[in-house]
Amino acid sequence: LDYQHVQVPFEITLWIMLASLAKIGFHLYNKLPSVVPESCLLIFVGLIMGGIIYGLNDKSPPVMDSDIFFLYLLPPIVLDAGYFMPSRPFFENIGTILLYAVVGTIWNVFGIGFSLYGICQVKTFHLQDVSLLHNLLFGSLIAAVDPVAVLAVFEEIHVNEKLHILVFGESLLNDAVTVVLYKLFRSFCEMPTIKSVDVLAGVGKFFVVGLGGVLVGLTFGMTAAFTTRFTKDIRVIEPLFVFLYSYLSYLTAEMFHLSGIVAIIACAMGMKRYVEANISLKSHTTVKYFMKMWSSVSDTLIFIFLGVSTIGENHEWNWPYICFTVIFCLIWRALGVLVLTFFVNRFNVNTITSKDQFIIAYGGLRGAICFSLVFLLPDFHRKKLFIAATTVVILFTVFVQGMTIRPLVDLLAVKRKRESAPTVGEQIHIRFLDHLLAGIEDISGHWGQYYWKDKLEYFNSKYLQKILLREYDQPKSSIVLLYEKLERKHAIELAEAGQLGHAPSHPSLLNNDRTVATDRKLEHTLNPDVLENIQEILTRNLYRIRRMGPAYNRHTLPGETEPVDHAKEILILRHKSL
Amino acid sequence: LDYQHVQVPFEITLWIMLASLAKIGFHLYNKLPSVVPESCLLIFVGLIMGGIIYGLNDKSPPVMDSDIFFLYLLPPIVLDAGYFMPSRPFFENIGTILLYAVVGTIWNVFGIGFSLYGICQVKTFHLQDVSLLHNLLFGSLIAAVDPVAVLAVFEEIHVNEKLHILVFGESLLNDAVTVVLYKLFRSFCEMPTIKSVDVLAGVGKFFVVGLGGVLVGLTFGMTAAFTTRFTKDIRVIEPLFVFLYSYLSYLTAEMFHLSGIVAIIACAMGMKRYVEANISLKSHTTVKYFMKMWSSVSDTLIFIFLGVSTIGENHEWNWPYICFTVIFCLIWRALGVLVLTFFVNRFNVNTITSKDQFIIAYGGLRGAICFSLVFLLPDFHRKKLFIAATTVVILFTVFVQGMTIRPLVDLLAVKRKRESAPTVGEQIHIRFLDHLLAGIEDISGHWGQYYWKDKLEYFNSKYLQKILLREYDQPKSSIVLLYEKLERKHAIELAEAGQLGHAPSHPSLLNNDRTVATDRKLEHTLNPDVLENIQEILTRNLYRIRRMGPAYNRHTLPGETEPVDHAKEILILRHKSL
Repeated sequence: LDYQHVQVPFEITLWIMLASLAKIGFHLYNKLPSVVPESCLLIFVGLIMGGIIYGLNDKSPPVMDSDIFFLYLLPPIVLDAGYFMPSRPFFENIGTILLYAVVGTIWNVFGIGFSLYGICQVKTFHLQDVSLLHNLLFGSLIAAVDPVAVLAVFEEIHVNEKLHILVFGESLLNDAVTVVLYKLFRSFCEMPTIKSVDVLAGVGKFFVVGLGGVLVGLTFGMTAAFTTRFTKDIRVIEPLFVFLYSYLSYLTAEMFHLSGIVAIIACAMGMKRYVEANISLKSHTTVKYFMKMWSSVSDTLIFIFLGVSTIGENHEWNWPYICFTVIFCLIWRALGVLVLTFFVNRFNVNTITSKDQFIIAYGGLRGAICFSLVFLLPDFHRKKLFIAATTVVILFTVFVQGMTIRPLVDLLAVKRKRESAPTVGEQIHIRFLDHLLAGIEDISGHWGQYYWKDKLEYFNSKYLQKILLREYDQPKSSIVLLYEKLERKHAIELAEAGQLGHAPSHPSLLNNDRTVATDRKLEHTLNPDVLENIQEILTRNLYRIRRMGPAYNRHTLPGETEPVDHAKEILILRHKSL
Repeated sequence: LDYQHVQVPFEITLWIMLASLAKIGFHLYNKLPSVVPESCLLIFVGLIMGGIIYGLNDKSPPVMDSDIFFLYLLPPIVLDAGYFMPSRPFFENIGTILLYAVVGTIWNVFGIGFSLYGICQVKTFHLQDVSLLHNLLFGSLIAAVDPVAVLAVFEEIHVNEKLHILVFGESLLNDAVTVVLYKLFRSFCEMPTIKSVDVLAGVGKFFVVGLGGVLVGLTFGMTAAFTTRFTKDIRVIEPLFVFLYSYLSYLTAEMFHLSGIVAIIACAMGMKRYVEANISLKSHTTVKYFMKMWSSVSDTLIFIFLGVSTIGENHEWNWPYICFTVIFCLIWRALGVLVLTFFVNRFNVNTITSKDQFIIAYGGLRGAICFSLVFLLPDFHRKKLFIAATTVVILFTVFVQGMTIRPLVDLLAVKRKRESAPTVGEQIHIRFLDHLLAGIEDISGHWGQYYWKDKLEYFNSKYLQKILLREYDQPKSSIVLLYEKLERKHAIELAEAGQLGHAPSHPSLLNNDRTVATDRKLEHTLNPDVLENIQEILTRNLYRIRRMGPAYNRHTLPGETEPVDHAKEILILRHKSL
């Protein structure tokens, strides 16, 4: 037996296997996941395992290594989040999200930090040795909402898209703020005196860390898109580039002390549309599937490790400090959401209801990021108290808030996500309105989101697509792509049901009057009139919208686009369909 | 800048990126890969990189770590090979393959070892200090044909299936022999005296290592199949189990000093059909795609590392020893193939032609396995000579033989692989013949391959499928599965061409006589008569073959199966098609 030799890969594989089997186990009983979120169950498994290890070895089980967490477990989850981020609601609410993420987090950090400092001044609590700076440092790590925990809970409760993107977007983008504040306070802790220059430099760092992350991410994203232009002859390694470039963007950002999370999200969102157009359908399925698989495993491992790491002797218990931490986390978040939403609602037509505000405040779950950060703290005599407080906050938010949020959503009748996908008609109307609003904004000289979107779309089709897409002369509208996808899905369904036009298993075929049978079947399953209608609308109007887009522009007159193009494109289309 | 922190993942990612980009680069120029095998180009890239590192640092570049090779780079390639192994030709030629792999490898080891020892006795060569045992040890590592190198070359030259499986199967299965002989001679080197008991134990080990590997592999394979029974609600982690279990089988086998390669192949071949039936179509695409991707990257990295490791000061040059090693490798392999094939051809109707024999002998490429083994040798004063000789043999076989084998195959007009997939008719005939031969063998009392195949099939459908498959009450014949796959593919093609029955882009639709147009189109693209024919054959005869299978058995009388089943099944089929 030579265990030493294979130990590292063997144990990693076993951990992943355990995580996957635990996941299967929960889903075998359908009732359990509908009551308790998976994250709670996984932490519970971790707690039991930690207890067993503790009982057998009589020493604390190993703590989740911060390096492993930040370098290997976090990136897949964030990549998945960024890649599948619904870009429309995200950019529609980007202002609100940034407000919550930046101002909200700062508010929480200082709120929690200062109030805990106040608690420390009470003599009976024996906490006078915790300085203000340490309290602020603790505040900076405990204030940030955790994307992993938020995703795990919000994926299961299906609230409406806007509410989801507000909480989820905040949890992702607050990383830049957390990184800056955490590092700032940590370096302050080690400095003898703090000058006002340092504070100013800290403020400047916000922009560097956030915008730097975006820049790094976009650079790698564009490179990835460019690389996939050349993979036509070697389809099989296409998915690799998506993973490699996004991981490199994360590592590069971390290397330069920028926000890795922001970088990987920018990379994934930037490359997505170009990569999807360049790679084959099978590669795309693999990319999507593997991303989901990877993030799901990471997620599982994180929660199990969280449970395991909780057990042990790393904690110093102090009732008042821990209780007040939980209370302040709740209060300051609620206050922050209320105040910020007040301002947001004043400048927006589409306001955030008070129910939504409650869910936003209540959905501020803490998770593994806080946990890893607290272990990264420099050693000082109260570190174990901070670890205990962080653990309690995480367990409280994941268990109490995570388990009650679903009943609360039901109770308050919060608007849910629509079950059905938008119909083709809706898609066309949305697109039409976009163009209309872009035109109105352009004419009125208002530089709103539609104006910028239109400009970006123009820049994209004029320059980016030509560089990044392999077949840039045939840009397909997203509706055409959707239509093609639906057609393909429909065809597969037909084939699987054995109804593909000539299905021999159909009993009426035995009558030998094929024509009638085939036709009747088509009518029955496809309703050709309706389909014909839809498709006519699609082919005609899509064409028009795409062609006429620029005609809304102030700088061109309507009708300036040559009619030759029109005739040519119809010819091409017809040629293809033959 | 904090490079230390992200160094490990960053450098790994960069290496993989370099490998992938190199692969893309070669495929940009279509002419290059058709002349030079990719493996040569990659080694060349490695040589250049090694030269640059050597030039800049003025010391030898790092050598490929044997642990990294055996634990991380080799398993994906072997898994891919085992999973996509064409099982029919493999089992048809299993006897020949085992003969080549076991007897052939032993022949080569002792042939090369003893003749090199003879060379060492020549005084003018100054090699008298190389003992017989060291020569045999060297022979044991240089004799084994390398699966990675063979795959890389044979994938591009498309020889006929039998020839391919003979070379490829040998290269995979000789691992058990290589492991045993290599470890045996290495332990003999360290022993003061060798007893005959040790030699006997060595012979016994062959069976333990080989059969133990098969056992470990099958155990994990069956567990994997069983696990995928329960993944219905959580499709997204299905592909993971395929990778986890096969990797675990490899590691477990290595841990017990069994043959990891044999284990992972047994695991992959064992689980394949059950896993495929249990997991979803998308999961299956992901599994296949990711396996190909992973093995392709591993393969690329191995050849680049091989090139890099060649550069440096690890070599001791001795013209006679190195030249004679190359010559003996060629001669002994050629002799071995001739002698073994002589015996094989005496007992087989379907003989191996002399052209095929030449390609088998010439296709005995050496690769990274020898290279890793030679670095794992215990330190002794002539180790550098062995390293040099191994490097030369690898480079000679990969460059000279690898580059000339394609022209030789053309020149000799070796039978090629058939381009088209077997038609449905052929498949039915093959299956029919299988049943017929199983019946003949059963009646004549000859326990040949068809008899065992039939027994295995019976055991499989009677016990294994019920345990391992989720929907075991509806076992689908492989032809039905193939048919479904073809239907699905066809449907997708139709959808992509916009001809799915009701395609509105078809110009004849404008005439508004839908019935005629639709019907004509169906006739045109599908040729319904032919299809109807095929499908009638399929549905009827498949049914009969499956039902009547046991009627050939000596223990039952024909017609014993109840006709009720027949009627019931037709009813079920009809009910479904409605």
